[in-house]
Amino acid sequence: MPRFAYVNGRYLRHRDASVHIEDRGYQFADGIYEVIHVRAGRLIDAEPHFDRFDRSLRELAIRPPMSRAALLLVLRELLTLNGIENGLLYFQATRGVAPRDHKFPQQSKTTLVATAKHLKSLAPAMLEKGVAVITIPDIRWRRCDIKSLALLPNVLGKQQAVTAGAYEALQVDEDGNITEGTSTNVWIVTAEGKLVTRPLGEEILAGVVRRSLVGILGDMKLEFEQRPFALAELRAAKEAFLTSSSAFLLPVTRLDGTPVGDGSVGPLGRGRRRRMDAEVARQSAA
Amino acid sequence: MPRFAYVNGRYLRHRDASVHIEDRGYQFADGIYEVIHVRAGRLIDAEPHFDRFDRSLRELAIRPPMSRAALLLVLRELLTLNGIENGLLYFQATRGVAPRDHKFPQQSKTTLVATAKHLKSLAPAMLEKGVAVITIPDIRWRRCDIKSLALLPNVLGKQQAVTAGAYEALQVDEDGNITEGTSTNVWIVTAEGKLVTRPLGEEILAGVVRRSLVGILGDMKLEFEQRPFALAELRAAKEAFLTSSSAFLLPVTRLDGTPVGDGSVGPLGRGRRRRMDAEVARQSAA
Repeated sequence: MPRFAYVNGRYLRHRDASVHIEDRGYQFADGIYEVIHVRAGRLIDAEPHFDRFDRSLRELAIRPPMSRAALLLVLRELLTLNGIENGLLYFQATRGVAPRDHKFPQQSKTTLVATAKHLKSLAPAMLEKGVAVITIPDIRWRRCDIKSLALLPNVLGKQQAVTAGAYEALQVDEDGNITEGTSTNVWIVTAEGKLVTRPLGEEILAGVVRRSLVGILGDMKLEFEQRPFALAELRAAKEAFLTSSSAFLLPVTRLDGTPVGDGSVGPLGRGRRRRMDAEVARQSAA
Repeated sequence: MPRFAYVNGRYLRHRDASVHIEDRGYQFADGIYEVIHVRAGRLIDAEPHFDRFDRSLRELAIRPPMSRAALLLVLRELLTLNGIENGLLYFQATRGVAPRDHKFPQQSKTTLVATAKHLKSLAPAMLEKGVAVITIPDIRWRRCDIKSLALLPNVLGKQQAVTAGAYEALQVDEDGNITEGTSTNVWIVTAEGKLVTRPLGEEILAGVVRRSLVGILGDMKLEFEQRPFALAELRAAKEAFLTSSSAFLLPVTRLDGTPVGDGSVGPLGRGRRRRMDAEVARQSAA
């Protein structure tokens, strides 16, 4: 079955899908993106993803490429054309094509590109045994709340993790606090048993799975705090886990080469993962 | 005369020049670039630009797209095809096309793209009257020494300048020192008459014109210091100017709405500009 991508109003063979070399996404990282998980043909948490997409556009003063309803149609059509029931939708919008000049062009049409792919299932070992992470200094810009294409530091961080045999690199700010992974939010269960994650701010992305989990926690009788936490606190944590739209929730069992807690997946991470899977099942059956 | 661009081994009509949507330059800003000034058909300061290009590639572990000699041939051919005697060459290299994943792909071929354009002359008023600048917080990542495509903060800064009726935005670090403009290096003549520019480091780009000027100054009996300088020192400066490969040297006569020095172009900036024009004339006649 051939693969298709969407580029500015056209569904193209994926291998032929291209943009002009003076698209500002290519020369300036002047654009934003979203990734939505698809289960049983349903878009998981579509609304918060669209909300964040709109917010990123507003923050960069990029004109929306189309209405939300039209965007949803494009994405659904892409799933149909590619025969995808379980997978990931990726879409990005840039400030469009214009002669190279840093300042915003007076006239330009927002470029919208979208791709869809089947999702390889997570290796069961990743959920059963957890993943290894390393820590690195956070060298990114100060507006990580915008889901922009300026991902070069994230790329370099992820590659450092891979080189070290780890899944993810957690970034540490100048105060010694964890901000987030290169493509994940970070959670810990402290030595005292409190669930902690960093509060929203310009230093981290407002993860959609993070948001869902905060919502779920609000319904439960669990000690939960949104506050900065230090690398030292992560080292002393009973449990740690990551959240992201592609993997939902992943337990962390090794940190910079040493075990987290007793080195096995903890009960809280396991429970939250089950709860999250149930929520995904609910949405995909809705 | 039709315009041509170079993309991965082919000279294409500029309007048809495109790259795949999964080029890592488009999805991750995973690439670098250079801009070289062309005068009378000669590339100005070609070697230091190529040196910096090579360094940026090394820092990001991107394979060089071709030898320096081959790259020079491509750029010269592009000038010929476009009939350009005086203009700008732009070229960028990315980690190539691969299925979207933060980590480096196991196999990918570096993408090389190049464009050439005639250069509009600077408005004479810019040199005679100088330009206005504003100051903004430096929110960029920590590796501004790499000439990467992750230019979104620079774009936002330049647009702030334009909105304020200024030419450039000078960025101020957390210590209150000037780092650089969004596409320029910054120089001041202090109240005491010393010429000062920030030393090289990870906070600024090693500008090629900056380098030339440092070289010229080495031959002269002029008090010159490479050290960080504060916004307050810029406000009190007798003169200030910017350097860049596209504009060479531009006097700054207004800062955040107030005059720099007496508000006119100072003797030192004027003299350095003359000296730099002479150097460009020398290279273009060589």
